[in-house]
Amino acid sequence: MTFDIQMTAKKASAAKHQIASLSNAKRKNLLTLIGNNLIAATPAILEANRLDIDHAKSSGLSAAMLDRLLLDESAIKNIADAVFQIAAQPDFLGAISHMQPQPSGIQVGKMRIPLGVIAMIYESRPNVTIDAAVLCLKSGNAVILRGGKEAQHSNQALAQVLKTSLNSLQLSEDIVTVIPIADREVMATMLTLSESIDLVIPRGGEGLINYVTANSRIPVIQHFKGVCHLYVDKAAQLDKALAILENGKTQRTGVCNALETLLVHESIAAAFLPLAAKMFESKSVVVHACAKSLTYFKDATPATDSDWHAEYLALEIAVRIVNDAEHAFEHIREYASGHTEVIVTEDFSLAQRFMREIDSSVVMVNASSRFSDGGELGLGAEIGISTSKLHAYGPMGAESLTTEKFVVIGDGSVRE
Amino acid sequence: MTFDIQMTAKKASAAKHQIASLSNAKRKNLLTLIGNNLIAATPAILEANRLDIDHAKSSGLSAAMLDRLLLDESAIKNIADAVFQIAAQPDFLGAISHMQPQPSGIQVGKMRIPLGVIAMIYESRPNVTIDAAVLCLKSGNAVILRGGKEAQHSNQALAQVLKTSLNSLQLSEDIVTVIPIADREVMATMLTLSESIDLVIPRGGEGLINYVTANSRIPVIQHFKGVCHLYVDKAAQLDKALAILENGKTQRTGVCNALETLLVHESIAAAFLPLAAKMFESKSVVVHACAKSLTYFKDATPATDSDWHAEYLALEIAVRIVNDAEHAFEHIREYASGHTEVIVTEDFSLAQRFMREIDSSVVMVNASSRFSDGGELGLGAEIGISTSKLHAYGPMGAESLTTEKFVVIGDGSVRE
Repeated sequence: MTFDIQMTAKKASAAKHQIASLSNAKRKNLLTLIGNNLIAATPAILEANRLDIDHAKSSGLSAAMLDRLLLDESAIKNIADAVFQIAAQPDFLGAISHMQPQPSGIQVGKMRIPLGVIAMIYESRPNVTIDAAVLCLKSGNAVILRGGKEAQHSNQALAQVLKTSLNSLQLSEDIVTVIPIADREVMATMLTLSESIDLVIPRGGEGLINYVTANSRIPVIQHFKGVCHLYVDKAAQLDKALAILENGKTQRTGVCNALETLLVHESIAAAFLPLAAKMFESKSVVVHACAKSLTYFKDATPATDSDWHAEYLALEIAVRIVNDAEHAFEHIREYASGHTEVIVTEDFSLAQRFMREIDSSVVMVNASSRFSDGGELGLGAEIGISTSKLHAYGPMGAESLTTEKFVVIGDGSVRE
Repeated sequence: MTFDIQMTAKKASAAKHQIASLSNAKRKNLLTLIGNNLIAATPAILEANRLDIDHAKSSGLSAAMLDRLLLDESAIKNIADAVFQIAAQPDFLGAISHMQPQPSGIQVGKMRIPLGVIAMIYESRPNVTIDAAVLCLKSGNAVILRGGKEAQHSNQALAQVLKTSLNSLQLSEDIVTVIPIADREVMATMLTLSESIDLVIPRGGEGLINYVTANSRIPVIQHFKGVCHLYVDKAAQLDKALAILENGKTQRTGVCNALETLLVHESIAAAFLPLAAKMFESKSVVVHACAKSLTYFKDATPATDSDWHAEYLALEIAVRIVNDAEHAFEHIREYASGHTEVIVTEDFSLAQRFMREIDSSVVMVNASSRFSDGGELGLGAEIGISTSKLHAYGPMGAESLTTEKFVVIGDGSVRE
């Protein structure tokens, strides 16, 4: 099977103005229709998913991956509910901000517009197919989706729902494409099509993201590691610190907003670390401790430089006693991945400094790193997380898939 | 001569938090000091500039390039005045927008922060050295400047002013580097340093921009051509249309916001094109006309597809009669470069549609394309123009060199 990605991208680019210039009301109709059509197509989607699951089992896919791949009636209902939620969110396209008269007499404002055509590369998770497509449509973009090969049949069934919905509103099918094959060459070619595609969002392992960054002529949203820090200051309330530590490290471990490193102010270490050690023991958290803190933990191993860099994604944590807040700032500047950092303190001025000076995408005072998520931050659904600063930084909602252009109003105005 | 760009970039990255966390008041002091020190250093700068001019003359540089290279006392005063103006502009770093309580009880806002380290690659224009450095400092960024080789001595004298100013406020010299050699290899290496450098802004010919885009591992602000369109609608007032046409095409021709293509509605062509032809003749504008409009002009040549793509940067224009507004929209969608497009019309609803549906970075109603410039649009000084939609779109002021991070405030808050 071959697939003409050049033609697909060209068609998407030719169709993008249809979705971009749709009124917000019609766009809402489209999304609602997609939700309804999804539920109506449940039998067909489950049949396609059954094929994927059978293939996956016979090729020995891990239980965790099977779990992500599997759909049932309630999973489809959940996907549709997410679509209805996105449809109900406030619109932002066409919003004009800052309309200001200038000394020359012209008026200048900025209008929010879609980016154009967005390419998503992601794992074998069928729910992402709909989520990503709907977030792109909400923000007025055309979209090209390239999911993992294990989900191919499911994805094509979902693509059919998207195309049917576009069709019945007289919109071009080219606005959404789900690439039918997970071919490396097709992806490599896609990454060169900067004339038609405006943005690439890769989701998956570091290898994929490095590959896309190295080979793309199109701008890429990068999401590398989440090495999240908690700094417990000398002015911390210990109960708050302990709750935030437990929640951040143990509520869910395989996620990028889990805590990986605990920094504790020297003068509070003797009071706080025994509490932390007890909690770690009860939750079976493996500790990698600096020389100064080693004695607080029963079975801790000495932390090395690689522990400060580690994204464990497991019940494991690195612990370091720091001399003072300045030392904690230095550690975070050196080792943070740009994701989320937390301070626990009652020192108002220090909290202000932390929020101002730590330049990760999410900085928190007295709150758990687990809140670092599009939904919890009030963005609605999340299309990805950016840990590089260009265009978007941190969790990205639909509005991150837009930009602003200048609009100028004159009355026959010319420049002197 | 060799130059260690890796070390330079690392040092800039290590020093960036100094300029990022400076208070707005101190940052203003720094900029004012740079302006004063520039004026005080006038004799040294002129001496260095004399060396560049002597070299340039003996190597046969064009008069236009010599003109851009040459400094005199009043040119230095103008550069300093621009610095004082940037210093006086409102500050935006640390501004928090949208602080909102969330259902979980946490408060979430967004804070404006610098990008980090910015690399500028530009022509042999000494004034850009100061302009770019000061815009980066205003926005809290460290900066690495790589100017054209013809301006090397002037640039080093200007670099000395910047370093002296940083020094006298106890700030690291590493915050600003002017690379002392214009070596292609140094630039090629620089473009791979994505761990230390956050953004590259190339200014110059299409060749340079293509080279940088193809070779950079760092995000790039792209400024390709300015193929600006004027559409004179059937509901246009002819005097406004004529004034905007003359201003756009003839006020300055070598600039990216000059008009390159005139589209005229069929039903107004017989009334408008004779006026346009007369103006073109009086200003010696060469016309490339479509088959339908050819007869309106004395010495016009027939327009080909390459004329619709052309950025003449000269007293030359392409003219096309379109069937209706839809036809004009189609032409612009096909040939526009993402820079600036103008409609002249009194039709309110059509003007609204034009503003909404044309997705160039600047869309104008009844105003000259020549207003498409950072100063005229109210941005203050301009660091560049982006014709791609990621991160920034259109003329970029200092604020375009920033991003927003999330700030979260809790009270021991954890996720359920």
